[in-house]
Amino acid sequence: MASSQDCKEVLQPLTQQRQLRKRNGGIVKRIASVIGMKPENRAEYERLHGDVWPDVLKRIYDSNIRNYSIYRYGELLFAYMEYIGSDFEADMAAMAADPVTQKWWEICMPLQSPVSDRAEGEWWADIAEVFHTD
Amino acid sequence: MASSQDCKEVLQPLTQQRQLRKRNGGIVKRIASVIGMKPENRAEYERLHGDVWPDVLKRIYDSNIRNYSIYRYGELLFAYMEYIGSDFEADMAAMAADPVTQKWWEICMPLQSPVSDRAEGEWWADIAEVFHTD
Repeated sequence: MASSQDCKEVLQPLTQQRQLRKRNGGIVKRIASVIGMKPENRAEYERLHGDVWPDVLKRIYDSNIRNYSIYRYGELLFAYMEYIGSDFEADMAAMAADPVTQKWWEICMPLQSPVSDRAEGEWWADIAEVFHTD
Repeated sequence: MASSQDCKEVLQPLTQQRQLRKRNGGIVKRIASVIGMKPENRAEYERLHGDVWPDVLKRIYDSNIRNYSIYRYGELLFAYMEYIGSDFEADMAAMAADPVTQKWWEICMPLQSPVSDRAEGEWWADIAEVFHTD
């Protein structure tokens, strides 16, 4: 099961500084990351993510995350999301403190296999933007 | 050098049907794909993509592609983009017919190594969306 320390580790890569971009007059921070997933966990992970609990989605939204997608290529998951708030660390701390989100992470994290070359403290590993155009 | 057939192959994965989503009242089609890149080509690829030719960017925009990012994880490139037009095949054909875009592809494609498990006719390999929330 995920400890509160594990949950902090999930959020840590998201706190890094990234390129900013304007959309609808607001600042948007793009975030992309990867994590592994063994083939035997694929069906359960995709079943869960096809019907994410409404309170988990609400907490993501309330933490100013928008346009959040996860894609799978083989045993690798790619996440892409946009952060529109002004205090990322506080918004992520609010997510980590949410009991329903904690329960969701307890279910999902054992299905994931973090990549071995992730940075210290990362769960999902931050990946570098090579190109962007609006 | 890339042939016109190669260029068609670049575009083919983008024509597949994907989930639709509303943004600003319009239909947005999210597209994600992967391609390999050998370490010896990384510096040149990233140099090129840090300063993409303006006419290439204009052609992307005119073909109704928005919010287009490429990320790198090890020897894998991950592309995310959004299509806001109403005739994807025509917009991609216009891109493929553009002489500057063709020249750009001639430079970039030899730096890429398509993944071996891509579908027939793909250059960038389409990847499956597991999750999305707005």
